Amino acid sequence: MLFFTQCFGAVLDLIHLRFQHYKAKRVFSAAGQLVCVVNPTHSLKYAPARCAAAQTSVEQGILPPCHHHEAVHDPQLIPCTCPLFSCPWEGHLEVVVSHLRQTHRINILQGAEIVFLATDMHLPAPTDWIIMHSCLGHQFLLVLRKQEKHEGHPQFFATMMLIGTPTQADNFTYRLELNRNQRRLKWEATPRSVLECVDSVISDGDCLVLNTSLAQLFADNGSLAIGIAITTSKVHNAEAEI
Amino acid sequence: MLFFTQCFGAVLDLIHLRFQHYKAKRVFSAAGQLVCVVNPTHSLKYAPARCAAAQTSVEQGILPPCHHHEAVHDPQLIPCTCPLFSCPWEGHLEVVVSHLRQTHRINILQGAEIVFLATDMHLPAPTDWIIMHSCLGHQFLLVLRKQEKHEGHPQFFATMMLIGTPTQADNFTYRLELNRNQRRLKWEATPRSVLECVDSVISDGDCLVLNTSLAQLFADNGSLAIGIAITTSKVHNAEAEI
Repeated sequence: MLFFTQCFGAVLDLIHLRFQHYKAKRVFSAAGQLVCVVNPTHSLKYAPARCAAAQTSVEQGILPPCHHHEAVHDPQLIPCTCPLFSCPWEGHLEVVVSHLRQTHRINILQGAEIVFLATDMHLPAPTDWIIMHSCLGHQFLLVLRKQEKHEGHPQFFATMMLIGTPTQADNFTYRLELNRNQRRLKWEATPRSVLECVDSVISDGDCLVLNTSLAQLFADNGSLAIGIAITTSKVHNAEAEI
Repeated sequence: MLFFTQCFGAVLDLIHLRFQHYKAKRVFSAAGQLVCVVNPTHSLKYAPARCAAAQTSVEQGILPPCHHHEAVHDPQLIPCTCPLFSCPWEGHLEVVVSHLRQTHRINILQGAEIVFLATDMHLPAPTDWIIMHSCLGHQFLLVLRKQEKHEGHPQFFATMMLIGTPTQADNFTYRLELNRNQRRLKWEATPRSVLECVDSVISDGDCLVLNTSLAQLFADNGSLAIGIAITTSKVHNAEAEI
């Protein structure tokens, strides 16, 4: 009976996901756009007792991730860039993607334009929705975070970071687009490098910011569809022409 | 000496405005776009002691503007739609524009695309920047408001309202665009009718919302340039084709 209930639950989940996928496709009607359903993760970074990796790092007296690279002896090594966990890992920039995939199980998607469908927007802060996005020969980290900067008033912050250096990041422009109910909100900016900390980008407010009422206007049945596009920036093109 | 100081101050103001105008034109480089410098007005609506009109309305026991039209006996008469003052005026929709121009001295601008340059963004909340915009045979009211929804954390809210009925408003789409420092933020929506209250649009958060840090990223020397465009909406076009 338990087996049957679980199977039935799984089938219902699949139908629900399929339905959400269809709705997101309808909103972003451009053909060939990949819709990726992203489930939330309750941020464990600031709750080390619940996270073995974080506990280890705290016991070893390692600084939180934002300051890791300042404390590293080999300048070629960078700390783990996962926004979810305080992880003691460090390694070369080239292997950050495989670390994020294998250790933190962050999905990676291909394609110039994708739709990021964040589910369960109602979950309490702090919560993160994270994927990697492979495009134009580089990998990007997309972070949607629900956070309470002012107590009792959660906001949503969305940003895209290049898994590369700040100089490489300057060559790109990313666009995040929300589109529903005859309303459209677009944010375009140069991605930051993952060597800068996602926490500081969000605390600076230099990203797409949505208060709860605006997020509800764009959400459909508790899910938020964000259209993502990455292009090489004009500055880069102009330099290439010269 | 006082005369000289005042004249000199006025000349400096003119030079400053001219410089701001040039900068706004540079940001929104499309030829033929009209740049309108909009000075702030400290909102007097909720400070009746400082506003004769509001005082009169309070003394007469008239409801605040949002509820005025519910209390009106002649259904063809609407209350004053000025977001700044609690004004006891009421009249037909056709004469709202001339009332706003003559009594509340709100400027009106022509053109499909204009740049709204709000000065002195640093002034404390509550502050409003308001103009009327004449376009496609209709008049619109653009309101930028600095308001503290959460104490100590002012935010900026921008919306466009049609001086017309909700049915007429459904035929249009307005776009507000901020563009500076390799960042771009666009908000597109159907304008609300002035028969709905601007206060409720802002409290619902159904408008362009900027927190202070984001507003500072887009501001230039204390001024915020907002590109405005109004088009007839696609639904309207599709209906016209049928």
